[in-house]
Amino acid sequence: MPITANNPKRKTWIKTPTNTDFPIQNIPFGVFLTRDDVITIGTRIGDTAIDLGALHQLGYFEGIPLTDDIFLQDSLNDFISDGKKTWRLVRNRIAEIFDAENDALKKNKEHCKIVLFTLDEIEMQLPVTVGDYTDFYSSIEHATNVGTMFRDPDNALLPNWLHIPVGYHGRSSSIIPSGIPVHRPQGQKLINGTEKPIFGPSRLVDFELEMAFITTDANQLGEPIPIEEAEDYIFGLVLFNDWSARDIQKWEYVPLGPFLAKNFASSISPWIVTLDALEPYRVAGPKPLKEQLPYLQYTGKKSFDINLEVAIQPEKAKETIVSRSNFKHMYWNMSQQLAHHTVNGCPVNSGDMMGSGTISGPTPDSYGSMLELSWRGEKPVQLKEGGSRKFIEDNDTVIMRGHCEKDGVRIGFGEVSTKLLPVFKK
Amino acid sequence: MPITANNPKRKTWIKTPTNTDFPIQNIPFGVFLTRDDVITIGTRIGDTAIDLGALHQLGYFEGIPLTDDIFLQDSLNDFISDGKKTWRLVRNRIAEIFDAENDALKKNKEHCKIVLFTLDEIEMQLPVTVGDYTDFYSSIEHATNVGTMFRDPDNALLPNWLHIPVGYHGRSSSIIPSGIPVHRPQGQKLINGTEKPIFGPSRLVDFELEMAFITTDANQLGEPIPIEEAEDYIFGLVLFNDWSARDIQKWEYVPLGPFLAKNFASSISPWIVTLDALEPYRVAGPKPLKEQLPYLQYTGKKSFDINLEVAIQPEKAKETIVSRSNFKHMYWNMSQQLAHHTVNGCPVNSGDMMGSGTISGPTPDSYGSMLELSWRGEKPVQLKEGGSRKFIEDNDTVIMRGHCEKDGVRIGFGEVSTKLLPVFKK
Repeated sequence: MPITANNPKRKTWIKTPTNTDFPIQNIPFGVFLTRDDVITIGTRIGDTAIDLGALHQLGYFEGIPLTDDIFLQDSLNDFISDGKKTWRLVRNRIAEIFDAENDALKKNKEHCKIVLFTLDEIEMQLPVTVGDYTDFYSSIEHATNVGTMFRDPDNALLPNWLHIPVGYHGRSSSIIPSGIPVHRPQGQKLINGTEKPIFGPSRLVDFELEMAFITTDANQLGEPIPIEEAEDYIFGLVLFNDWSARDIQKWEYVPLGPFLAKNFASSISPWIVTLDALEPYRVAGPKPLKEQLPYLQYTGKKSFDINLEVAIQPEKAKETIVSRSNFKHMYWNMSQQLAHHTVNGCPVNSGDMMGSGTISGPTPDSYGSMLELSWRGEKPVQLKEGGSRKFIEDNDTVIMRGHCEKDGVRIGFGEVSTKLLPVFKK
Repeated sequence: MPITANNPKRKTWIKTPTNTDFPIQNIPFGVFLTRDDVITIGTRIGDTAIDLGALHQLGYFEGIPLTDDIFLQDSLNDFISDGKKTWRLVRNRIAEIFDAENDALKKNKEHCKIVLFTLDEIEMQLPVTVGDYTDFYSSIEHATNVGTMFRDPDNALLPNWLHIPVGYHGRSSSIIPSGIPVHRPQGQKLINGTEKPIFGPSRLVDFELEMAFITTDANQLGEPIPIEEAEDYIFGLVLFNDWSARDIQKWEYVPLGPFLAKNFASSISPWIVTLDALEPYRVAGPKPLKEQLPYLQYTGKKSFDINLEVAIQPEKAKETIVSRSNFKHMYWNMSQQLAHHTVNGCPVNSGDMMGSGTISGPTPDSYGSMLELSWRGEKPVQLKEGGSRKFIEDNDTVIMRGHCEKDGVRIGFGEVSTKLLPVFKK
């Protein structure tokens, strides 16, 4: 079925700011609370939020097999379970409804009043109930930087890294949408040269610039997903800030991996941009440096050209962009990650989230964490306003943004913006 | 509020086999499918399953603040969210309803027909929808055995082990109830002395004898749970078999921990035995070998004396008990685990599951995994029937059982029984 929603020539009758992340070619999905305190599933064009629950009740999705309450829910999980064909039908239909040539809804002022919201009338929620969250470690630049700093510059990559899209399980309960502040975590740390850990606030709170993809129900227990089918099970992507406490991480992570250093919070952008919408931005991925096992070999372009940036905004000061990276740098792509994750029969469900791992680029200004940007704190990052930073300070806001651009169409993710508050006090 | 349900003198009018795991003092909670294809929450006395949804509809819980459909659900999550006071009221009431001195239900044959089931009329389901699953590594004997085998017998414990209840995140989607078979997983393995991994079936499939506790909603993002409050948020426990593929684990786990080696399956016993029911079996835990940080220090008895055993049953052969251990051996207790897990503000919700880690005892016949019992395969374990085992073979069934016993009352968990099938073929 063609993705007619992606037609680059289509214009919309919704007033849309120039250079918006959300032209009519985007049509992302999210969940919001409306001015009437109703939770609904919606989409966004320009700075207008659209209540899909109301649109459906008014009959605008006639002919598409959808249950009556599919959009009147507090998560996208059920809609995502309906599968790729349905997502595509709905996105194509939304494009038609808001097409500049179609004034059926436009001229129905009553319906417009029910369906359309300005952004200050809504409050974005988590778009999915995350069943399981997995985080990968798939940027070769990031893995090399970390290995260089903490192990051996001549053997920075561990022996398994070029063979395995290394990943580990994370905590779903602390995944929060953009706008929710996070407290500086406390925990155990070992001061260099001592033998007894101390307890206190993490002094090395960091962001990790990631993207995460959201899956649909993919397989039964025991059944692997072949790599060439993997994209069928990917609904879309969000920006993902994998908050990390480096001092807690260093002391706790051997031998079972990071735990409290990560599970105090992970922040996501609230609009899921569909894989369909990203179709025009496919690019070839990096060439494998070592031969990969057959279950990880793929054909075609499975990487996506998504520009990413991270800004730090100290309290009452202007923001500074501290990193510019790109999702295309990932050594292991999403299809490889999903094929690997399920090769042992691990079941993947609707609403599961899979983070890319920190997306560092090849140059020092494209690194995806303060750990790398400040090189363990040895090279503080100068801000335009608010001094310099080795790591994130109390009341700093970390903002991540992402967008694709080609042939005059820009598809963006909006942003994930999170303020770091001081340590929690009861 | 007194836990009157624990009265050791109480008898029941339900016919109960001697030495049952489920006397009227137990009253565990589970979810089952009935002969009429209805999913309901239930309990069990002896070999009789009791439909709590039907009991509630018939008015037997009058006076207890419960929503009408609280037991007519496919998971216990909402009931668990109601909190400890409600769990206790319900358990106490169930004890009264089935007390030998109370014939209100007993003499109502109509009601009995609706409420009571033989075990062959029901099919046990997963008792909770697991939001997040965490696995700890809290047996000093297990950690020492693993360290001795793979690192250094003189420094078997890693430096953090005596300070941190080490834990890591696991996969919720592959937690299955007793009775569901598991396929031997495939994955990457590195043959000793080679540099290039190969792909194929794991040759070192193992069980891990664990228990897991299930939590209620405990805290908001950012807010730690003090150790002395931790037990308020623990609903109950199950037996837990953390299936493991040792060869996959060895190649993948550095630096972010086990992933595909674990997430192909974890099996649980289907009846959740409440922490209340285990109250009489409290014992003091092991003395700390090093001083613990204040947030991990506790008063009173926080360990539980639960006898555990593992049997292997080859196809068409008798089972052999290969290990006898006890939950009281755990160096870190559940309160310490929960206080640690939340000290950074990580939120814990109803239905979250926390595994203990392999529960090995001090003697070689009390080790909780084949890795330890066969000492990496160097000392095959002799079975009564079906040869010997270094690890688990295709079509073997692994059975774990657990029970407490004191003053003539036995509180048991039933069993978790899982057959290992050959590699999945489409």
